[in-house]
Amino acid sequence: MADEIRVQKEDLTRFCVAVFEKLGVPRHDAEVATEVLVVADLRDKGSHGVARLARYVEGLKAGLMLPTDHSKVVREAETTALLDGGKGLGQVVAVKGMDLAIAKAKAHGTGFVTVRNSNHYGIAGYYALRAVEHGCVGISMTNAAPLVVPTFGRDAILGTNPIAIAIPCEGEPFLFDAATSVVPRGKLEVYDRLGKSMPLGWAVDARGKGTANAREVLDNLIKRRGGGILPLGGEGEEFSGHKGYGLALTVELLCATLSASAFGGMTYVDEHSANVGHFFGAIDVAAFRSLPEMKREVRQYLDALRSGPKAEGHDRIYAHGEKGFAFERDCLKRGIPLGSKVVDSLKRIGGDLAVPWPG
Amino acid sequence: MADEIRVQKEDLTRFCVAVFEKLGVPRHDAEVATEVLVVADLRDKGSHGVARLARYVEGLKAGLMLPTDHSKVVREAETTALLDGGKGLGQVVAVKGMDLAIAKAKAHGTGFVTVRNSNHYGIAGYYALRAVEHGCVGISMTNAAPLVVPTFGRDAILGTNPIAIAIPCEGEPFLFDAATSVVPRGKLEVYDRLGKSMPLGWAVDARGKGTANAREVLDNLIKRRGGGILPLGGEGEEFSGHKGYGLALTVELLCATLSASAFGGMTYVDEHSANVGHFFGAIDVAAFRSLPEMKREVRQYLDALRSGPKAEGHDRIYAHGEKGFAFERDCLKRGIPLGSKVVDSLKRIGGDLAVPWPG
Repeated sequence: MADEIRVQKEDLTRFCVAVFEKLGVPRHDAEVATEVLVVADLRDKGSHGVARLARYVEGLKAGLMLPTDHSKVVREAETTALLDGGKGLGQVVAVKGMDLAIAKAKAHGTGFVTVRNSNHYGIAGYYALRAVEHGCVGISMTNAAPLVVPTFGRDAILGTNPIAIAIPCEGEPFLFDAATSVVPRGKLEVYDRLGKSMPLGWAVDARGKGTANAREVLDNLIKRRGGGILPLGGEGEEFSGHKGYGLALTVELLCATLSASAFGGMTYVDEHSANVGHFFGAIDVAAFRSLPEMKREVRQYLDALRSGPKAEGHDRIYAHGEKGFAFERDCLKRGIPLGSKVVDSLKRIGGDLAVPWPG
Repeated sequence: MADEIRVQKEDLTRFCVAVFEKLGVPRHDAEVATEVLVVADLRDKGSHGVARLARYVEGLKAGLMLPTDHSKVVREAETTALLDGGKGLGQVVAVKGMDLAIAKAKAHGTGFVTVRNSNHYGIAGYYALRAVEHGCVGISMTNAAPLVVPTFGRDAILGTNPIAIAIPCEGEPFLFDAATSVVPRGKLEVYDRLGKSMPLGWAVDARGKGTANAREVLDNLIKRRGGGILPLGGEGEEFSGHKGYGLALTVELLCATLSASAFGGMTYVDEHSANVGHFFGAIDVAAFRSLPEMKREVRQYLDALRSGPKAEGHDRIYAHGEKGFAFERDCLKRGIPLGSKVVDSLKRIGGDLAVPWPG
């Protein structure tokens, strides 16, 4: 990008930690929240990275998020726990939840933790990968503000509700991490900025009919006039949009009803409580078979998959996660690329809070 | 359908049980295998119902499937187990696996069981629903014979790898049960029979390019000439085909590598062993919160979702599972509708084995 600025990971981290601290977040928690944001940028998920820092600043200032951690386990058994997030930073609460699931998996084979009363937790995959570090399969899901329209419906009442599943592998782990919508909102914003028509199958208008007009959809979403983004599989049932809708709904039910947090349509209705819910799971591979053997086999299988014959016009088959890890390696060498608008917003935040922008 | 014949559930069940028994399957196991097949027909998943009986008959005759149960637990811990299916009937082995997961969940909160050395297990949702009967969330996945082409690839190396997740609810449970392919092979067969062009986005030809020619794709699949069905999200990345591919791959890895069974591309390579793998999970709702409260909330949420505003031209929003349960109620009154070709194949089987076709 022409207007792209490269920032070193350490500099960006130091800046974000200082911003969180200025807003009353204790050092350790500031580091946790920052890490999840910066890792998103490192893995080419910029929409969930430091570009969102402004939302966290606003959330902390408005009292939607509390700077100090009031989370507590409200129910716990051998392999399960329900954590009340205490309106804390989503990242801080989510790390606690995932780490509790991992500890249970290491002790008993499997561990599952649900979280209520939390906030936006960043990239789902971050938490799933924590489990891999302990030789576990990691599962991470969250519900989210409503943007997605159910099949045959007209109103956005489901979040983009991501599913992340990380699986140990020799070398880099396998990481599936995807919203259950056909595209993220950020994609509509790109088309809007460029004044381009979207492909039909990404979104519907206020009548629930397919539209190519990104501006109209974004506008309708903000004003809650109806319409929104379609689930994976698109409009209706022809390309199995009902499957993407079902995945979104499954995530919603696992996150919201096992934790008694709000459903997608009801998150963020109170300006002082988002009440987002998360679902975390860890499954210890060693409970089933030798971890090194399993990791070797996953690697061999993914290698075979990647080396299979390619579609005409393509020269590479990817396994999930590898694009992000390659992007990270490049960022660690050359710095993290940030758009000039993002840098401007960070500088503004820094200016307001007397945190100097690096360099 | 003009050539549709309605058969009572009890008659169809008696017939199938007798067929399995004639092939050396003990009574109880014959009943289990039959139930899974007949429930598929009852829930409008005819492609996985008694229409497949011929495949089981052939599998048993050829020694791909063994009539008697040689499955055994090869590794077990508090909340986990690995079951060797002993080349048994997939349904018999899968019920054992799921029931073991449920027992572990009732004792410890969660239970996960993987299965190797098994066969085609029918509808994934059947097993997930067993967990709901015990107040648990149920998870069921299986890998399968290769039909699906990875994003940017040219060869079918993934199964249609279904995911089923059942969630307790007041009244009928929520049941997500879907192949991770954009459509099932059966859909291509319908288009082939009707001589219709398929929508682009369902399948690719031997070069890995989108095609509307169902006959060609089916033919290529049988002859393993390349091409096949696309994952949910379709061709390439424009509609997030990589997400469907990632879901299929996740199922593959969970089913095959946690159990050390064969991967999709390598199932059914030996005519005497399919070596299909399954993955089952159960999570006890009561470990997190009151089951009746949770079930009420799920019901209220799904009711709200269904009563939301509809897209122009549509008058109903469905929650997953409800179409199948409605179909079942109708079948129990009026009989199960079977196509005349299916009935002919059943009669042929009955004729060969001296099992009289009902009525």
